[in-house]
Amino acid sequence: MEYSGERFVAVYQLTGDETSARLKANDLCLEQTVELPDALVTDEKIRAHVFGRVETLTLRETDLYEARISFAVEIVGGELTQLVNVLFGNISIKPGIRLERIELPPALAQKFRGPRFGKKGLREFLGVRARPLLCTALKPMGLNASELADLAYQLALGSIDIIKDDHGLANQTFAPFAERVARCAEAVARANEETRGRSVYAPNVTAPAPFVHERALFAKRHGAGALLICPGITGLDTMRALTDDDRIALPILSHPATQGSYIADRTSGISHSCLFGQLNRLAGADAAIFPNAGGRFFFTKDDCRALADGCNVPMENIAPIFPTPAGGMSLERVPEMRAMYGRDVMLLIGGGLRSHSPDLVENCHYFRELSETI
Amino acid sequence: MEYSGERFVAVYQLTGDETSARLKANDLCLEQTVELPDALVTDEKIRAHVFGRVETLTLRETDLYEARISFAVEIVGGELTQLVNVLFGNISIKPGIRLERIELPPALAQKFRGPRFGKKGLREFLGVRARPLLCTALKPMGLNASELADLAYQLALGSIDIIKDDHGLANQTFAPFAERVARCAEAVARANEETRGRSVYAPNVTAPAPFVHERALFAKRHGAGALLICPGITGLDTMRALTDDDRIALPILSHPATQGSYIADRTSGISHSCLFGQLNRLAGADAAIFPNAGGRFFFTKDDCRALADGCNVPMENIAPIFPTPAGGMSLERVPEMRAMYGRDVMLLIGGGLRSHSPDLVENCHYFRELSETI
Repeated sequence: MEYSGERFVAVYQLTGDETSARLKANDLCLEQTVELPDALVTDEKIRAHVFGRVETLTLRETDLYEARISFAVEIVGGELTQLVNVLFGNISIKPGIRLERIELPPALAQKFRGPRFGKKGLREFLGVRARPLLCTALKPMGLNASELADLAYQLALGSIDIIKDDHGLANQTFAPFAERVARCAEAVARANEETRGRSVYAPNVTAPAPFVHERALFAKRHGAGALLICPGITGLDTMRALTDDDRIALPILSHPATQGSYIADRTSGISHSCLFGQLNRLAGADAAIFPNAGGRFFFTKDDCRALADGCNVPMENIAPIFPTPAGGMSLERVPEMRAMYGRDVMLLIGGGLRSHSPDLVENCHYFRELSETI
Repeated sequence: MEYSGERFVAVYQLTGDETSARLKANDLCLEQTVELPDALVTDEKIRAHVFGRVETLTLRETDLYEARISFAVEIVGGELTQLVNVLFGNISIKPGIRLERIELPPALAQKFRGPRFGKKGLREFLGVRARPLLCTALKPMGLNASELADLAYQLALGSIDIIKDDHGLANQTFAPFAERVARCAEAVARANEETRGRSVYAPNVTAPAPFVHERALFAKRHGAGALLICPGITGLDTMRALTDDDRIALPILSHPATQGSYIADRTSGISHSCLFGQLNRLAGADAAIFPNAGGRFFFTKDDCRALADGCNVPMENIAPIFPTPAGGMSLERVPEMRAMYGRDVMLLIGGGLRSHSPDLVENCHYFRELSETI
């Protein structure tokens, strides 16, 4: 077969001195492709095209290099699963290598739809012109479907844009998926009629593989207006397939559960920007939920800024998406988040929305007011 | 609703002094369940049943504690995706917490089939009574389907038990899945007729979510005798669903691509034993491929022993599986692996099988001979 000559680039941070970094870069070229020592590959076409190629190796700081490695688009076969494998499969098991970012040529990017809505589409869908989008979560796990629906009703009366399930709400007997979704969607619709608002309910469709689309279709039929999924649990491609399903066609919120290990160690794993920004976008999320700096988790402000950049960086046909800082945020933090992320952000406050005052609807209005103030 | 009182246990390693470890343990009980501060949960039933519970907190060494935390089986709803979420979802994003092992009561373990074959079943399936199982890989990526089939033919003439695709073989134009599988399965069958052997071909079905079962069914129809999948890429539950599909009913080999980040940092992530042993088993793998100590990757001997333990530890109805050391192994390493893992192991040698001598079939026979010698 003939190769097009089109290549995509993966940028890695490599730890070590120049010799060690060069060894790592050269190793990457084989490990992520032919998985054989150089000497065992004699086919000239494979050597010329299938081998990864070190395009540049640049010193960033002492014992920290950046390698740009290119791969033929043909080795991906147009599939997200194999793209992820080339970018990070075996290399995940070697120390001192972190995937920083990806650069896809149009020929490869166009294999993927990316977010169905993206920033612009989601604003239109929700009817929110310019202010930050507001999001909250139904919790705690253990409430029954009626109790969750009562909560959803209050939150929709408060005009929160997206009222999502907590990501631990699955299909437990205390609030089975079907009953919960039907009741919560109905409650949000009822509140919308009263407020003439456009709040949407986003149930969690993180589910066993055979049920993801089934639950999403059920949710759509019963009036859900968006969906929540944890791609770290279901696999990124399950989220992509959900986005691509024209029968569903709802905005997708991506939740970071189990993905913390990829960003736990600054010398390995995947950068915040690439994992939560670029890969989420390739896999069709319209909003990337992440733990904001200064909450219950350990992201730094720089991590969060980089992540927001990954949600926005140009990627050919792949639309930008909403960074969605969360994880223990409170109303008091809104002005700071507004200053840090600007207006193109989705603000997610869960428990913090309830503790502000006993009047939940009033707290929601205050959330909106704060979010519109610079 | 009523709770059964049945609880499962997750054992975590917590880093820090006693105060800090206790804070982490208590935090886990809320973070993995209600995701609300204690004071915001007033429902007595939720407090009594849904909250995680610290059963014991034990000092292991200076600044290293082990916490046994129990959760009500009801919060899992019988789904592997939600079990993974409770065990490790948000906690993956907090430092100094590592999931060490899980203890499931029969009521929860029985929700899962586990491996369809397991050690005993796989030995019967392959007709191998007592010696180690032998495995190798078709590579490099870039060969066409005929070239890969020629290789498969040689390896089957050499009586390797399982001849698997390299996990980078997906559906690329240079060796499209359908053509590759048909040709390789035919080549292995042809060699089996000559040797009266029982080698099987295991194609890689790591694929976009909508195609996994489709490709597995195609492979089965065309004579594949096992399947390879990367649950780190597809999601663990996709592997489980594959195992559970009675139309397929083939042995499953699990490949660790992208899972390295979970074990990169000894103070966070998931233990080798739990990730590659216990979780692979719950998700239906019959063999767990992993990078052996002293190969191209950085697992230590202790890591590998712990991993093999996780493949064997009693787990109610969930069968033990074959640890499958790999990742740059050579024929010279066989006696050492045999000594370390005993006979209940699957030995996987890829490139190393080709470099021993120019006669590939002879190298395979030598592999078998070495594996049978203690």
